[in-house]
Amino acid sequence: MVEFSEQRLGSLVSILRRRGIILPAFEIHGGAKGFYDFGPVGGRLHRRVIQHWVSHWLKNGNIVELSCPTVTPFQVLEASGHVGEFSDSMTTCNSCEEASRADLILEDFHPNPDALSMEELQDLLERSQPACPSCGQSDWSSVELQNLMFNTAIGSGKSAKAGFLRPETAQGMFTSFPSIYRHFRERLPFGALQVGKGYRNEIAPRQGMIRLREFNMAELEYFIDPEAPLSEEIDGWSEPVNLIADGKGEESLTFSAALKQGMIRHTTVADFMSKTMTFLVEVGIDANLIRFRQHEADEMAHYARDCWDAEVYGSYGWVECVGIAHRGCYDLEAHENATGQRLRAWRGFSEPRIEQVDGWTIDGAVAGPVFRGDAGSIKIALEKLPADVSFPLEVAIDERMVKVSQEHVKRVQRTESIAGEWYIPHVIEPAFGIDRIIWHILDHAFNDTGKDGEEYSMLRFKAAVAPVDYCVLPLFEKDGMGELALKIHQRLCAEANVVSILDGSGSIGRRYARADEIGVPICITVDHQSVEDGTVTLRQRDDGSQTRINISDLTS
Amino acid sequence: MVEFSEQRLGSLVSILRRRGIILPAFEIHGGAKGFYDFGPVGGRLHRRVIQHWVSHWLKNGNIVELSCPTVTPFQVLEASGHVGEFSDSMTTCNSCEEASRADLILEDFHPNPDALSMEELQDLLERSQPACPSCGQSDWSSVELQNLMFNTAIGSGKSAKAGFLRPETAQGMFTSFPSIYRHFRERLPFGALQVGKGYRNEIAPRQGMIRLREFNMAELEYFIDPEAPLSEEIDGWSEPVNLIADGKGEESLTFSAALKQGMIRHTTVADFMSKTMTFLVEVGIDANLIRFRQHEADEMAHYARDCWDAEVYGSYGWVECVGIAHRGCYDLEAHENATGQRLRAWRGFSEPRIEQVDGWTIDGAVAGPVFRGDAGSIKIALEKLPADVSFPLEVAIDERMVKVSQEHVKRVQRTESIAGEWYIPHVIEPAFGIDRIIWHILDHAFNDTGKDGEEYSMLRFKAAVAPVDYCVLPLFEKDGMGELALKIHQRLCAEANVVSILDGSGSIGRRYARADEIGVPICITVDHQSVEDGTVTLRQRDDGSQTRINISDLTS
Repeated sequence: MVEFSEQRLGSLVSILRRRGIILPAFEIHGGAKGFYDFGPVGGRLHRRVIQHWVSHWLKNGNIVELSCPTVTPFQVLEASGHVGEFSDSMTTCNSCEEASRADLILEDFHPNPDALSMEELQDLLERSQPACPSCGQSDWSSVELQNLMFNTAIGSGKSAKAGFLRPETAQGMFTSFPSIYRHFRERLPFGALQVGKGYRNEIAPRQGMIRLREFNMAELEYFIDPEAPLSEEIDGWSEPVNLIADGKGEESLTFSAALKQGMIRHTTVADFMSKTMTFLVEVGIDANLIRFRQHEADEMAHYARDCWDAEVYGSYGWVECVGIAHRGCYDLEAHENATGQRLRAWRGFSEPRIEQVDGWTIDGAVAGPVFRGDAGSIKIALEKLPADVSFPLEVAIDERMVKVSQEHVKRVQRTESIAGEWYIPHVIEPAFGIDRIIWHILDHAFNDTGKDGEEYSMLRFKAAVAPVDYCVLPLFEKDGMGELALKIHQRLCAEANVVSILDGSGSIGRRYARADEIGVPICITVDHQSVEDGTVTLRQRDDGSQTRINISDLTS
Repeated sequence: MVEFSEQRLGSLVSILRRRGIILPAFEIHGGAKGFYDFGPVGGRLHRRVIQHWVSHWLKNGNIVELSCPTVTPFQVLEASGHVGEFSDSMTTCNSCEEASRADLILEDFHPNPDALSMEELQDLLERSQPACPSCGQSDWSSVELQNLMFNTAIGSGKSAKAGFLRPETAQGMFTSFPSIYRHFRERLPFGALQVGKGYRNEIAPRQGMIRLREFNMAELEYFIDPEAPLSEEIDGWSEPVNLIADGKGEESLTFSAALKQGMIRHTTVADFMSKTMTFLVEVGIDANLIRFRQHEADEMAHYARDCWDAEVYGSYGWVECVGIAHRGCYDLEAHENATGQRLRAWRGFSEPRIEQVDGWTIDGAVAGPVFRGDAGSIKIALEKLPADVSFPLEVAIDERMVKVSQEHVKRVQRTESIAGEWYIPHVIEPAFGIDRIIWHILDHAFNDTGKDGEEYSMLRFKAAVAPVDYCVLPLFEKDGMGELALKIHQRLCAEANVVSILDGSGSIGRRYARADEIGVPICITVDHQSVEDGTVTLRQRDDGSQTRINISDLTS
């Protein structure tokens, strides 16, 4: 088991920076807090993790990939609730003008400042007078709510419109619902996924890759008919996993057992938790350092039916890396209400339902000329009335009361055969923080226990995500070895999805060490014998074992 | 040869929208000009084109992938020149408040309004009084320069800092130069590429996918030593191509011949033009509808040594899809000047150069106590002086003149052996507009010539980028055919990088037509015989030919 420590974290961060894996962005210009680059080695890791994630979910057979804009008009994020509710408490240091999150600077003075109201935070701030993390003074402005979206303007001049950088990729999938529904020929369940940038203008970012202002997200919105029968089948991870149910202690259970017990409240949620576990382990997260924690009732959004976080343990303690939420019909309904567009699916009844209609409707010939533009709205209002009302009565149209008399209406009595109904699908959403996952892949892969008493570090990546597949090392760059190594390197690079590095300088031991440091699974050494008989030495990163093979057997 | 027409464009756009390939974004909320979604089918096309692009360049063996933030601090884009020079001329309609690009609304009144100064545009606007494209009135505000970057604020409150959404991915590669240089163990040439969002807050977007406010870019920055010997070898496309050299007519030449003639001014530029041609054809652009046009002297940026656009012909005429520019040392030098950080490479001389040094330096013992804090700067200034000056003299230190006497200095005469020197690498940049390329893939793949006298349309994608690989069609969803089709569909989806669709409703002919419309290369039909003997019918999109094969032979 890994021993996480400040010292180990320091070594890891220094290697990530030196070897071009993850680096503070814009560093030559003084940097910008909360922004990171994936460098010459990290860029490939980033692509491979994302590729693996997309393939993992597309295998389901009823999921498609979308790509939507990051700049998003005001009204979309107003409908989703982000304009109103995506905010943190902020206070500004009157001495150095640095903004801080009020709840974070009060952590030493309260067990859970995140749960306090604005007034309580203000009160606690005044009583406890915490020091400014930036200048050390204790002179704070009033606590206020600060929306966390980056804002911008779309267009120029007087016709410019307010917009934001999206705080999540999810909204693009909800606003695309009509197109996805059509694609799947109106048959649920189906899903849409998207990978891309998300933005959160953190008041005071900290903790390296864990709290970024610009991050990589991967989300799946899986639309289901809440009345469709559920299978009990769960795919993926069948071993017991550490689960912390709402308000209870940690238990080791299989996902199936937790579903059967009712701890996990929906088959699809359990199935996605299982598939999430498989994914995390496949990309290199240590299975023993993963737990699933259910949101407690007061932590969960009011509309959610169930919500589990996959948390991963590493240098920063337990960190939420994935959230799997049953969001009910909240999102589609919110956009439906804001736009008046139908975001529903049709549910055909197995047999038509026969319904007796008995009620009222408008008598167009009489009422049309009287009510004119209001006639349509009045008709809708009348048809909602029970059969036993008496006229005249008043109906509410656009906040006005309109009087309707007996002469304007007709009785409706008929038998209707109803083939089905429109309903708002429910959505199950697994949301992955790709940067946090990549961070933990690195944190778990990092091995700095040394070798023969010397300092030695290695990134033990799984082959599926290793940023570099091969390192080709000519023993010397003469007698044809350099040329042969270059030829092998180029042949490897020509293969789809294979990355090779050519390293010709320094002792072989030094070069193995450099390759191990960035986690190259296999080194290929070209020596005098290679030039003569066409064989090379393969050396495995993890156990240092060496075998001699023919160059022609190098790749499949 | 395709006949492009307004009518064909209309049919194509309607299919792209109906079938979920490319759709206006945020449409249920009324839309936002200049923003598009890649839908359930287009999302996969988008990913495949990008994957193909990345693989294409990584094959080179000395190119790495980076991923940098899109939100960029002010000073980075000030250094690059974008704050000062990335702008268009804008005028606003006083009647409807809609902003327009002054040069575009004046197109009918001048052969090339883009080349006019602000004063000339203002003058022409007043004389010609064009109608507002939005409301038809002719009442314009003064013409002003409008910067085209989306701006935002990083952080909150008084400590917020100005930032922009990046107008290109390139700057992240320049600011990462130290990390890339280290990765390649300080050996040039090498390159870094990046694929991601770019932003341009167009004053008045038009032409669908051609002018977007948020777009997908793919750029490669290839760093070279300008003094390194050049090979004459060009990889890739060896057939003649249509080339329009600076100020000349169109000629059909091979890239090699154009390089030998001096028309293309640098081997690497020619090599990248050739590789660009190969890429475009591989993803499905018609080779006969590609030409390369060299920038004329007055069109090219002042620092550029050569610049070629790959233009593609389609429904919007000739459109620039790729730019391949030899940018000299401009970019690294600009960031070096702005930051004081060294963005250089070391060039070792083949033999050390022996130089006779004869000049002056400071006499520390005497001058140190006199000049104190200035002593270091004075030393640097003195060492630049020739041997034949006489003292006293004055040197400029921080805009002050400081008098230096004979007693403060010593003569320096020695022989130095110089091993090499620092230089600013030159950069060759191929920049690809991914959305424009995807647009032309669609435009060239679209075939609406009908079938048997009926309307019929098809997207003839190359297999490498087809968004859906297979369509599995059970003849009926009974007698085991539905189950078998589902099993085949799931087996195909489980393969890496394979996408299958299951389509069970409607006549087989109707379903073939639906599959052809989104360009599925192969349909697999499951019929009664399939259930009995395990064979299925493969039907090819392009020629409609059918063959019967065993299910077990379906995939490799």
